[in-house]
Amino acid sequence: MSATHPLSIGVFDSGVGGLTVVRALRRLLPGPNVLYLGDTARVPYGSKSPRTVERYALSCQNFLLERGVDLILIACNTASANALPALVAASPVPVIGAVEPGAKSAALASVGGRIGVIGTLATVRSGAYPRALTHIDAAVKVAQLACPLLVPLAEEGWTHGPIADAVATRYLTELWALDRDLDTLVLGCTHYPLLQAPLGSAAASIFGHPIAVVDSATAMAASAQAVLAELHAARLASANQGRLSVFVTDATRLDELAPRFLGEELGEVELIDL
Amino acid sequence: MSATHPLSIGVFDSGVGGLTVVRALRRLLPGPNVLYLGDTARVPYGSKSPRTVERYALSCQNFLLERGVDLILIACNTASANALPALVAASPVPVIGAVEPGAKSAALASVGGRIGVIGTLATVRSGAYPRALTHIDAAVKVAQLACPLLVPLAEEGWTHGPIADAVATRYLTELWALDRDLDTLVLGCTHYPLLQAPLGSAAASIFGHPIAVVDSATAMAASAQAVLAELHAARLASANQGRLSVFVTDATRLDELAPRFLGEELGEVELIDL
Repeated sequence: MSATHPLSIGVFDSGVGGLTVVRALRRLLPGPNVLYLGDTARVPYGSKSPRTVERYALSCQNFLLERGVDLILIACNTASANALPALVAASPVPVIGAVEPGAKSAALASVGGRIGVIGTLATVRSGAYPRALTHIDAAVKVAQLACPLLVPLAEEGWTHGPIADAVATRYLTELWALDRDLDTLVLGCTHYPLLQAPLGSAAASIFGHPIAVVDSATAMAASAQAVLAELHAARLASANQGRLSVFVTDATRLDELAPRFLGEELGEVELIDL
Repeated sequence: MSATHPLSIGVFDSGVGGLTVVRALRRLLPGPNVLYLGDTARVPYGSKSPRTVERYALSCQNFLLERGVDLILIACNTASANALPALVAASPVPVIGAVEPGAKSAALASVGGRIGVIGTLATVRSGAYPRALTHIDAAVKVAQLACPLLVPLAEEGWTHGPIADAVATRYLTELWALDRDLDTLVLGCTHYPLLQAPLGSAAASIFGHPIAVVDSATAMAASAQAVLAELHAARLASANQGRLSVFVTDATRLDELAPRFLGEELGEVELIDL
C-alpha cells in the first residue's frame, strides 16, 4: 500500500460493547478510518467454550482483513483471552488484544500489587488477566470474579440507581472476600465502563480504602497509537477526519444500544453474514 | 415404526432453560424416552433477529428428527414465537410450540380477560402471545414487557433475596403502568419459573389484587400427553421408565446450571456440533 493510502483500523467485538473502545480510539486518533464489526447475531461470547470463541473470532478478523485494515483491535475481552494466539498467527497486520494493555495499566496503577479483575465467565476462566499481570510483575497477587449480570444491566441502561448499586455491592463483596487488600480493580469487559460509577462507589465503601479503577478501552487506544506511530508514521501524520463504518451480524436493538457505548449516534450500518 | 418401538419425545431450547419443560414432561409422562438438545453454543436466541432464530431452530429440529423422535417440543419461547411455521412445515411428526399451550392456560386462568406477558425481547417483539391469546378469545386485552435481566438472574441462582425482589418489582411496575387491571401473568420464557416466587409476590403487592401466574412448561407437557394419546395410544400405554438423553453444543457451566432447571442431576451428556 502507498504512503497516501488512508490508514484504517479494524475493531471487532461479540456485540456493541466494543464501541467503548472505538470511542476511546477516535478521541485519541481522529485521523484513521475505523471499521467496527459487532458479531451481534452470536453475542455473547462470554458463555461459550474457548473452541467456539476462537472459531467466531477468526471469522470476524477475516472479515476486517479482507477490507484492508492496517491494524486489528480485539475489543472483546473474551475473544482476547481465548483466541489471541490464533488471531495473531492468522493476521498479516499487528493484532492488539484487550487483555495486555489493560493489564499493563493496572500494574502501573497498583501501589501494593493487589489487583482484582472482574469480567465474563469465559474471560475469568481463561486466566488471561492473571497470566498477563504476573508476566509484567511476578510479585502481583490477582483475585478474579465472573459477573454475568453486569452485561445485561449495562445494555438495559440500568447503570445508576438501587439495582445497579445492589448488584455492584453483591459482586464486589464476593471479590472483597477473596482479597480484602485489593488496591486496583480491572474492568475486564467492554460493557463495564458504563457501570464505572456504581462499581467505583461500591468498591470504595466495601474496601474502606482507595481503589484505582482501570478499564481497557483507553489502554487499547494508547497501544494502537504507539503501533501506528512505529509502523506508519507518515500515513498517521497525514490522516485526518477518519470515517467510522459499522458492520453487524444482527441489527436488533442496535439503535437503542449503540449510542450508549459509542457516546454519539451511529452513522451508516451494514448488516452482514459471517 | 412398529407399535413396540419405544416412544420418544424430542425437546430443544437455545440453552438449559428448557429443562424446566423436561421436568414437567417426565413428571406427567414418565414412559417415553426424552431427547433434549440445548443449543448452548448459540444461546441466547432472545437477542437475535427472527431470521437468525429460524435458521438455528431448524438445525436443532433436524438433529432430533434424525434420531427418530415421535414428537417435537420447542421449549424455547423465542424459537416458538419466531420459527413455528417453518418448523411445522419441515417436520413429519407433530410440533408443539411454547406459546400456544401457555396462551391457552392463561386464557383459562384469566377471569377478567386482562393478561400480562413477560419474556425475552424477541418473544415480545414477535407479538406471538398477543396473537395466540386474541385467537383464543378476541376480547382479551394483552400487555407485554421484555425483561432481559431475568435470564442471567435465574442462571446466577439469585432467585430469592433483595436483588431478585428489586428486579421483579422494577419490571412489574413497568407492566403495571401498561395495564393496572391485569389479573393473569404469563411467564413467557423457560427460565422464569425459577423466579416465580419474587415475581408472584412483587405482582401481588404492586397490583393490589390476586394475579394468576401461568408458566408454559406444565401446559406444554399436558399438550404432549394429549397428542401422544391420540396418535400413539398403544405405544404410550406400553412405555415405561423412559431414559433422558441430553445433547448440548457447548458444555460450559452445564453441571452448575442444568440441575437448577431440571430439578435433578443430569445423566449422560453428549457434546455435538450443529
